[in-house]
Amino acid sequence: MTRSADDISLDLAALRAAYEEGNLRPTTVADAVLRRIAARGDDGVWISRVPESLVMERARKLEGLDAEARRRLELYGIPFAVKDCIDVAAMQTTAACPAFAYTAQRSATVVERLLEAGAILIGKTNLDQFQSGLVGTRTPYGVARNPFDARYVPGGSSSGSGVCVSAGLVAFALGTDVEGSGRVPAAFNNVIGLKPSRGLISTARCVPAARSLDCISIFSLTAEDALAVLRVAAAPDPLYAFSRTAELGEPGVRSRFRFAVPRPGELEFFGNAEWQTIYQEGVERLRAMGGERVEIEFAPFRAVSELLYGGPIVAERLAGIRAFVAEHADAMHPVTREIFEGAARHLGVDAFDALHRLQELRVRTLKTWEVADFLFVPTTGTTYTIVDVEADPIQSNANLGVYTNFVNLLDLCAVAVPAGFDSRGLPVGATLIAPCFDEMLLLGIGGEFHRRTGVPMGASGRPLPG
Amino acid sequence: MTRSADDISLDLAALRAAYEEGNLRPTTVADAVLRRIAARGDDGVWISRVPESLVMERARKLEGLDAEARRRLELYGIPFAVKDCIDVAAMQTTAACPAFAYTAQRSATVVERLLEAGAILIGKTNLDQFQSGLVGTRTPYGVARNPFDARYVPGGSSSGSGVCVSAGLVAFALGTDVEGSGRVPAAFNNVIGLKPSRGLISTARCVPAARSLDCISIFSLTAEDALAVLRVAAAPDPLYAFSRTAELGEPGVRSRFRFAVPRPGELEFFGNAEWQTIYQEGVERLRAMGGERVEIEFAPFRAVSELLYGGPIVAERLAGIRAFVAEHADAMHPVTREIFEGAARHLGVDAFDALHRLQELRVRTLKTWEVADFLFVPTTGTTYTIVDVEADPIQSNANLGVYTNFVNLLDLCAVAVPAGFDSRGLPVGATLIAPCFDEMLLLGIGGEFHRRTGVPMGASGRPLPG
Repeated sequence: MTRSADDISLDLAALRAAYEEGNLRPTTVADAVLRRIAARGDDGVWISRVPESLVMERARKLEGLDAEARRRLELYGIPFAVKDCIDVAAMQTTAACPAFAYTAQRSATVVERLLEAGAILIGKTNLDQFQSGLVGTRTPYGVARNPFDARYVPGGSSSGSGVCVSAGLVAFALGTDVEGSGRVPAAFNNVIGLKPSRGLISTARCVPAARSLDCISIFSLTAEDALAVLRVAAAPDPLYAFSRTAELGEPGVRSRFRFAVPRPGELEFFGNAEWQTIYQEGVERLRAMGGERVEIEFAPFRAVSELLYGGPIVAERLAGIRAFVAEHADAMHPVTREIFEGAARHLGVDAFDALHRLQELRVRTLKTWEVADFLFVPTTGTTYTIVDVEADPIQSNANLGVYTNFVNLLDLCAVAVPAGFDSRGLPVGATLIAPCFDEMLLLGIGGEFHRRTGVPMGASGRPLPG
Repeated sequence: MTRSADDISLDLAALRAAYEEGNLRPTTVADAVLRRIAARGDDGVWISRVPESLVMERARKLEGLDAEARRRLELYGIPFAVKDCIDVAAMQTTAACPAFAYTAQRSATVVERLLEAGAILIGKTNLDQFQSGLVGTRTPYGVARNPFDARYVPGGSSSGSGVCVSAGLVAFALGTDVEGSGRVPAAFNNVIGLKPSRGLISTARCVPAARSLDCISIFSLTAEDALAVLRVAAAPDPLYAFSRTAELGEPGVRSRFRFAVPRPGELEFFGNAEWQTIYQEGVERLRAMGGERVEIEFAPFRAVSELLYGGPIVAERLAGIRAFVAEHADAMHPVTREIFEGAARHLGVDAFDALHRLQELRVRTLKTWEVADFLFVPTTGTTYTIVDVEADPIQSNANLGVYTNFVNLLDLCAVAVPAGFDSRGLPVGATLIAPCFDEMLLLGIGGEFHRRTGVPMGASGRPLPG
């Protein structure tokens, strides 16, 4: 028995089980995905697509493998997308800036690893230009349509990657995450957003954002799916100067744990009382799971967040693309251009002052990890309409980064998880954050939190598996 | 029986044994030290001295302790000096710049720890202004007199600290070492120079040089003495943002080990063939100790050395004292002023580019630690007279840093050891370098290397103990 396109859930548990039972074939999944994309029309998700004939050819090739060969492929027949700042051989990389576009000679290491594991690449997704933004509106390719309400921003910078997982167009998508680009779109699209520890996944042959902080992130329907992708994606790479390795271990499922929350007066929801309530419900959910709530001083984390864009550390953003900015500023999105031109003015001595300040703040944050296994915060305190963002593009964006910006600067890892829906029908997210290489703990507890939240997967309307 | 001042060797083994046997008292040592200092006259070693009455009072106080209290003090009655960029309560800190001087309210954490362990502070030593230099001539307080030949530079920036240990004025001295300031003076004064791993010894209440790289260093007559001081000095400090802790363990004495050396064509001695021969003798000495010689590519290490002063990373040097430089450039040593004013012009984006380049070079150096336990290099390829340095202050200084500058940028530790004497009677040094927290290995092998070199301790004419 083969299924029709409408029946197919793209979470890995469902796909793998169906492949295993012989109920599903890669060509059926590929065909379903292509139909769904066509049905959604011009939704701003894609900057470029793998030609449909090649998608089907790839699916047929996988289908032709014998059972033994299939079993060796951890991501056999799993459709995915990558943010368009990640190279794919023979395709354009635009970073959402047409004047910057080039055709990649070879795929990024991480893309090669996913393809070698049997995944099927569908296309390259829209983003805030040069990965600069948390809104998803700073792009000349149209705003990726939020599946829950097209008036609201999809979140950025990995806007297309967040939307395409939520909308059931792929099983998972790669984003990038320097300051929250892999978490804010997860929140606004009701999906998982894993920001792994710096150095675990190679960024070789990706457009740099801030090279010492650049991380490939993973969007998926469940925490288990993010883990499955991470296991394939994470590997040392001699071409990646910031590569680090760690034993990932198994997801940390614990009956007792301690989680840190900011002191009540330090939480900010920008007037969105409903989202505050949903966050507090998340806190109670963790307590019901066996978690002990510990209040910590959030001020140093917030100060680090402000350091990322409020000062000379932003100059690192310019380092990777300075020649382009110097010659083609006119071809940039006006908001992005303003940021990068500002970045060019900072002095080296100021950059080092800021790095020293960062280190002082880091010391103040370390107490958190003595009293708690992870930090639990809203992914964002609120959301904005596209109109809101156009009216105040800098401040709205900054507000979205309060709970995300500090993570990479402090060498932490994070998992953004769905936390509920507000009365407008918009999804609300929460994020678990821990010291580097603790992603297994976060995925274990985050996955259970997600199940207990009781929301459907993405925008699919389907309940979570298990 | 008490000894006369002339008999006293200031190495810790001798002092401790004599104290233990009751042959020596702290007041005798203090008195001997003060007489020696007086006898040496105006030797450019000291910027300020602890008043002699206070030195004697401190010695008497220690002498008054009961046997039990004495035994608890690891550095009971040991005279020492500190570089004059390290605060001592109620004394001036000048950093060799009179216009910068301030009176410290409280001693640096490391000084407090040494005093609590029973050491006797004698004074504060001369240095290249603001710790910028490897020569020891960039100071308005006169050039610390090289005990082997006053025409030759003492090495810097910790010039006074290197000389005072060699000349038998103290048992040990603290220096600092960003780019080699704790190793070059060790080489030029025939003493041990330990540059511990970044973060082990607090730099709280020291004048910053490059805060992320700043290290307190230790000058001593033997490797064992450096270890004894390190054990007291190294401790976590909440006031020190870059603090790191590690189990030091015991000195690594091994009968078999592998040591890396630069390929022959990559070694540079700036025309000093005799020092090249002495270095090669050092290589043979390590082989005779059971060491296997492994040739490695030195180019990436050298490129890192060039990165430290050849580009925008120098801007970090300015970060700590920018307000002073902005207002008092006229009061600075002309060479130091030139360096700092150049540092002020670098852009933030260039600083990040350089840090990325550093990371790429770092990856290339990592192979060394796969094939060898440590790297063995000349401490410097040659030496210069004061006249040479005055004629070409920038290039002569740069030449002295080829084998030292890269160590902190690559997060390594190092021990500079005496390696022999040239036909002019000048001491020649070699340095053992390893990944951070491997100082026990270096001190163990370096100590044995030092004994086998067969040179006297410092300028004392006395053989090494044991």
